[in-house]
Amino acid sequence: MNKLLYMLTVLFICSQITYAADPLPSWNDGPQKQSIIDFVEKVTAKDSPKFVPPAERIATFDNDGTLWSEQPMYFQLFFAIDRVKQLAPQHPEWKNEEPFASLLKGDVNTALAGGEKAVFEIVMATHAGMTTEAFEKIVRDWITTAKHPKTGKLYTEMVYQPMLEVLDYLRANGFKTFIISGGGIEFMRPWTEKVYGIPPEQVVGSSIKTKFEMRDNQPVLMRLPELDFFDDKEGKPIAINQYIGRRPIAAFGNSDGDLQMLQWTAAGKGTRLCVYIHHTDPDREWAYDRQSHIGKLDKGLDEAKAKGWTVVSMKDDWNRIYSFN
Amino acid sequence: MNKLLYMLTVLFICSQITYAADPLPSWNDGPQKQSIIDFVEKVTAKDSPKFVPPAERIATFDNDGTLWSEQPMYFQLFFAIDRVKQLAPQHPEWKNEEPFASLLKGDVNTALAGGEKAVFEIVMATHAGMTTEAFEKIVRDWITTAKHPKTGKLYTEMVYQPMLEVLDYLRANGFKTFIISGGGIEFMRPWTEKVYGIPPEQVVGSSIKTKFEMRDNQPVLMRLPELDFFDDKEGKPIAINQYIGRRPIAAFGNSDGDLQMLQWTAAGKGTRLCVYIHHTDPDREWAYDRQSHIGKLDKGLDEAKAKGWTVVSMKDDWNRIYSFN
Repeated sequence: MNKLLYMLTVLFICSQITYAADPLPSWNDGPQKQSIIDFVEKVTAKDSPKFVPPAERIATFDNDGTLWSEQPMYFQLFFAIDRVKQLAPQHPEWKNEEPFASLLKGDVNTALAGGEKAVFEIVMATHAGMTTEAFEKIVRDWITTAKHPKTGKLYTEMVYQPMLEVLDYLRANGFKTFIISGGGIEFMRPWTEKVYGIPPEQVVGSSIKTKFEMRDNQPVLMRLPELDFFDDKEGKPIAINQYIGRRPIAAFGNSDGDLQMLQWTAAGKGTRLCVYIHHTDPDREWAYDRQSHIGKLDKGLDEAKAKGWTVVSMKDDWNRIYSFN
Repeated sequence: MNKLLYMLTVLFICSQITYAADPLPSWNDGPQKQSIIDFVEKVTAKDSPKFVPPAERIATFDNDGTLWSEQPMYFQLFFAIDRVKQLAPQHPEWKNEEPFASLLKGDVNTALAGGEKAVFEIVMATHAGMTTEAFEKIVRDWITTAKHPKTGKLYTEMVYQPMLEVLDYLRANGFKTFIISGGGIEFMRPWTEKVYGIPPEQVVGSSIKTKFEMRDNQPVLMRLPELDFFDDKEGKPIAINQYIGRRPIAAFGNSDGDLQMLQWTAAGKGTRLCVYIHHTDPDREWAYDRQSHIGKLDKGLDEAKAKGWTVVSMKDDWNRIYSFN
């Protein structure tokens, strides 16, 4: 009996040790997982020559394709299309105007054939013209109800479990985690704290201009149909400098749009961690890279290989993709 | 002997209680000090109907005239003038060009008679044309050596001791403290963490544009002579929304340039703290308000009185101004 108790105790302690030693249980063992753990241990050990004070432990993450999925198109575009349908009764002219006419017929491809100009018109028609508070409520209502067309899941359920573990692991080691995304800053902020543990003030994204006004003797910020900042490619290090004012020591992305953020991170002094998430799993998620219109990873893949950055294969390195798997 | 020990113990405990009960020792007792303490107790007591979760305890502070002095002119302008003198050998044409010619002769008034255009030219000539890293070093070197013409002190010694206590008191109660200043964001960030305990990522200010470039195969951000954002008046709530993404529950300012920030803060739901620092002490600091070109407080003073905001008289409410007093 005492022996059994002893064995159970040992088993229990071992399981605890295993748990403590594996902060990334959804990651398969291998050089990718190890590169993250090695980096964190190197910069946090007090006696390490690579020690970084907690205040300087800044980690930045792209969102679309890095923290959650981005296929068959950016989730924010689903939001915009749902908004077009909702607003259509107030815009009878949309029946004959592209890109709205095609969208309302359900023909997204034709609508988006207009390229950047079409996307711009859709975004401005759906994201501007209301107060910041009203827009926040619209996003909140949508994100808690809208379902992904393929998985039938809420979009916020389509976040990557292995990346949630990385976020937790970094924060447990004194890091401040930031989002640096091409997506709309005010499209993300209403839900990132609950979903990722990242508060609004650590979310950076593309933005439209706002205007301060008095309405009924109360100040409001009106959202204007005018681009303020496009947080992609060269925009990412610019935004990091503007919003954070420190260079990250770790950065995670998945596309050529993240390359400059990774270059900027890598160019700092001391140990750095640069990670690309490579979409290689057509069964559990999607597989795409050099030829994709969404999340194109071409130059970045070459540079990552040349510079020895961590390239994570979703198929090989992650034993789970979503928490519902 | 035992009695003496007992009395000493009581004295010691009393002194500890007094200390614990006075988080703002440089503030004289009165309604101004009390309004700050009442507010903090109301939003932090778990059983309070006005309880605010820590994540939403955002407090914003203007810098010039609110956290440090701003007379006889904004300290950043002293920095710019020192830079003009330093750069003059590379700009022989400045000898005949205003506003530089007058500045180099030591005639600041004539130089600034050109108004906003003159200030803009001085700022762009001295704050742009180098990398962000080079500028940070220039600021660091200046701020650790340059002395104020009247007090002979380092500029960072001319911060208000009572406000340092407010910053500490708020942070000890779970607040995140932010600077929202008309001053240059990259002029403040190199020293705010050390001086105020406010890290770069919580400093918001006016900014010029930057450009991402590769130089010798290394990415740099070049500072361009082009205004990006002017963080004053209506700009302050816009910047709060853009950088923080939450409405503050407490805000501190000293001029009409802070009025919209205070209005924006006051307009949120629940208990709010809006504070104006009124410069009323010609002996220990400066006295100015409605007629001043720097830190003009006119409309703000009327609105504060009408709305019952806290108006702090430096002369009456602060028993110390600077820590060296």
